[in-house]
Amino acid sequence: MGESIGIHSFGHDQELLDLVDLVNVAGGMHAGDPSAIAETVDAAVSRGVAVGAHPGLPDVAGFGRRAMAITAQEARDLVRYQAGAVQAFVQRAGAELNHIKPHGALFGMLARDDEMMDAVCEVALQFEVPILGLAGTAHERSALRLGVEFVPEFYVDLDYDDDGMVIVNRVGRTRDLEEVETRARRALLDGRTSSVSGTELAVRAESFCVHSDLPNAVEVALRIRAVIEEEAV
Amino acid sequence: MGESIGIHSFGHDQELLDLVDLVNVAGGMHAGDPSAIAETVDAAVSRGVAVGAHPGLPDVAGFGRRAMAITAQEARDLVRYQAGAVQAFVQRAGAELNHIKPHGALFGMLARDDEMMDAVCEVALQFEVPILGLAGTAHERSALRLGVEFVPEFYVDLDYDDDGMVIVNRVGRTRDLEEVETRARRALLDGRTSSVSGTELAVRAESFCVHSDLPNAVEVALRIRAVIEEEAV
Amino acid sequence: MGESIGIHSFGHDQELLDLVDLVNVAGGMHAGDPSAIAETVDAAVSRGVAVGAHPGLPDVAGFGRRAMAITAQEARDLVRYQAGAVQAFVQRAGAELNHIKPHGALFGMLARDDEMMDAVCEVALQFEVPILGLAGTAHERSALRLGVEFVPEFYVDLDYDDDGMVIVNRVGRTRDLEEVETRARRALLDGRTSSVSGTELAVRAESFCVHSDLPNAVEVALRIRAVIEEEAV
Amino acid sequence: MGESIGIHSFGHDQELLDLVDLVNVAGGMHAGDPSAIAETVDAAVSRGVAVGAHPGLPDVAGFGRRAMAITAQEARDLVRYQAGAVQAFVQRAGAELNHIKPHGALFGMLARDDEMMDAVCEVALQFEVPILGLAGTAHERSALRLGVEFVPEFYVDLDYDDDGMVIVNRVGRTRDLEEVETRARRALLDGRTSSVSGTELAVRAESFCVHSDLPNAVEVALRIRAVIEEEAV
Repeated sequence: MGESIGIHSFGHDQELLDLVDLVNVAGGMHAGDPSAIAETVDAAVSRGVAVGAHPGLPDVAGFGRRAMAITAQEARDLVRYQAGAVQAFVQRAGAELNHIKPHGALFGMLARDDEMMDAVCEVALQFEVPILGLAGTAHERSALRLGVEFVPEFYVDLDYDDDGMVIVNRVGRTRDLEEVETRARRALLDGRTSSVSGTELAVRAESFCVHSDLPNAVEVALRIRAVIEEEAV
Repeated sequence: MGESIGIHSFGHDQELLDLVDLVNVAGGMHAGDPSAIAETVDAAVSRGVAVGAHPGLPDVAGFGRRAMAITAQEARDLVRYQAGAVQAFVQRAGAELNHIKPHGALFGMLARDDEMMDAVCEVALQFEVPILGLAGTAHERSALRLGVEFVPEFYVDLDYDDDGMVIVNRVGRTRDLEEVETRARRALLDGRTSSVSGTELAVRAESFCVHSDLPNAVEVALRIRAVIEEEAV
Repeated sequence: MGESIGIHSFGHDQELLDLVDLVNVAGGMHAGDPSAIAETVDAAVSRGVAVGAHPGLPDVAGFGRRAMAITAQEARDLVRYQAGAVQAFVQRAGAELNHIKPHGALFGMLARDDEMMDAVCEVALQFEVPILGLAGTAHERSALRLGVEFVPEFYVDLDYDDDGMVIVNRVGRTRDLEEVETRARRALLDGRTSSVSGTELAVRAESFCVHSDLPNAVEVALRIRAVIEEEAV
Repeated sequence: MGESIGIHSFGHDQELLDLVDLVNVAGGMHAGDPSAIAETVDAAVSRGVAVGAHPGLPDVAGFGRRAMAITAQEARDLVRYQAGAVQAFVQRAGAELNHIKPHGALFGMLARDDEMMDAVCEVALQFEVPILGLAGTAHERSALRLGVEFVPEFYVDLDYDDDGMVIVNRVGRTRDLEEVETRARRALLDGRTSSVSGTELAVRAESFCVHSDLPNAVEVALRIRAVIEEEAV
């Protein structure tokens, strides 16, 4: 969320805020200008929604979804910069930063690179917040190694490859709601999902992620919310 | 047009292209990435719509609608840079740059500053294209002085102040279609319009400008098109 | 300081750090990338130099020295964003943000605009830090009104106009060291300086500012340091 | 060249212009603002130095030296945009664009990716200019395939790996002048050079490239110039 840039609006922030427990707010590098961040953080905190930082690569035209050959130190500094910026708005609104969740291509790069993820965990330690990410990847390994709390997410609106990595496309596509519901329930109850090629994967779903740029993001969030409430988790 | 930035879409480019004779395509400074520019230019040229360069201030978060204290030389270089970039796409599509029309706050700054407008006219001379702008301002004076063709526009979806300057707001608002029609017809037939405070102003309308970010830009364009055709100009 | 951008180095940060008690570190909008900010903050804190945030306008090509027509709310959000980002690096280095000092054209805009300066003071209140600025302007008035501590600076390497405003040029020029010494001593002992046209101005100099982009910034800082020590203030 | 950004100066443009026959001028994405480009182009053309476009990735903090996962179409559009912008300044100065030479990580990406290089060759065809690049890579293959003139360069101030690719580091380092002279002469007369691990490589040197950000770029250029003149090529 918070990914508008001036009058270039983005996402479905206002509608989604009534359907979620926590949001990831852009840090201004892949999207989000200070005033857009301020507005989204204020709206979230006023509704009791927890706000995490959603740091991305410095690439507005690519929406942070194009991998870049940055160093571990640069990743750490980018994340620290953006987490600090978002935290300023969160504290102003009367809350505290809830977590850090890397965005887009940075998310994927960190899942595959323990050294880079270690560097980012330094920032989580500084802010004393958990990392939200993909179980079984460097996200979880680094967090465990460095004593950072880790919250595994299930990416119900992304495809998984056979290695259990999520496939981040440049543009989010409309998702079939029946499939969303089936996948969400299966991840929640059985801890399993299927890769794009049909391979069975073990997943852990302590949080469900919905991307705000999906054309039907609001419907997807509603459906997942219903699953969670039905299953009384 | 061409003001999308990656997946931050903007405007109503595709629908408007069927309703206009010429478009102003962003140069990448206030909005527009190279691929967005390419796509819009290709779509315009393939429909026979003439393409001009729409150079703006380097301010994405402000959409080029926040005045900046740049020098005349910087204005000239910014316009040359952006006109050159847009022309590359226009020529690739098989056409030639049709005109230069400054965007947003730069438009207003140039209307008030003869020295700066003179500098920008240098670029129009280089590209051998007319300037589209506001009659009775430095736009027209500089063009006349330097031998640049000048095409006066009427800004049917902007308010005019008592000095005959248009008021550029950060966000385009929905316009009343009856008022649009009345104002368009009056400008076309009588060469007159009213300022926000009711002062009568002389205007010249060789071209009608519709801003693509108006919520009802398509309806406004349709209404103006109808007026022009009814009056058989 | 911290105004390098990747391999575009800037200023004389390392040499100046031995000569100053406090520094203003860029927030990434007018200059400074996260890794440059990190490096400068670490160097400053490790030498016991206090670090303030130096938020600027989002204008790298103009180095934040071109006034922009932003709103008071945008000023506040820009400052909050940048102060939060800088603070993250300062806290990581084991210190706390020392102050906020607006940069460049934003400094001048805030000196002239009480409403905008009030908005920025909100951020100083949040971070519980003083504002460094120009006595007798909105910098001081807003701080006083809103209960923000205010530290008046003397700008020994800038010219003053007859209204007591400093003149921020795009490029810092080499300053005559004898003149620097004379002006510094006079500001310190007599609380007076001369405008560019010779008008006598009252000034208050609780801090002396040296711009790191002056070609002879290090020599200027040395000379001022000597004056302060000689006068045993 | 032309890689300054406002008052963030860069390179040794003025001194180098007396030592070279052609220069590569930044297109504003990895570095260079319109006024810096204008100044460098004017200086080059006024001395009879041919100007090519030096398009880079949109990454100022990484100086275009961090690989990015862009598509072939995005590469083409980025190059077209920047070539058009630079050409506008070249034509204004009274010359024509001389060539296209991709910058930094884009250079390396294009050397390894025929599809992407084919897309960039489209732009060279449009502008009717040669590509300067690395012989034996996709640079040459695509050019040959698509009928674009290709000028092989020797990178005397970069290391080569065993595959004949040049190794682009983030920061240019001071080069030993004796080694530069030896390598230049050998490339010129024998068409051979050694990789970092000592492997013998065939090279073709119709042009020698000197990076303007080398601390001793001027001395390196002088030495190469001397070799070329001594060997009376």
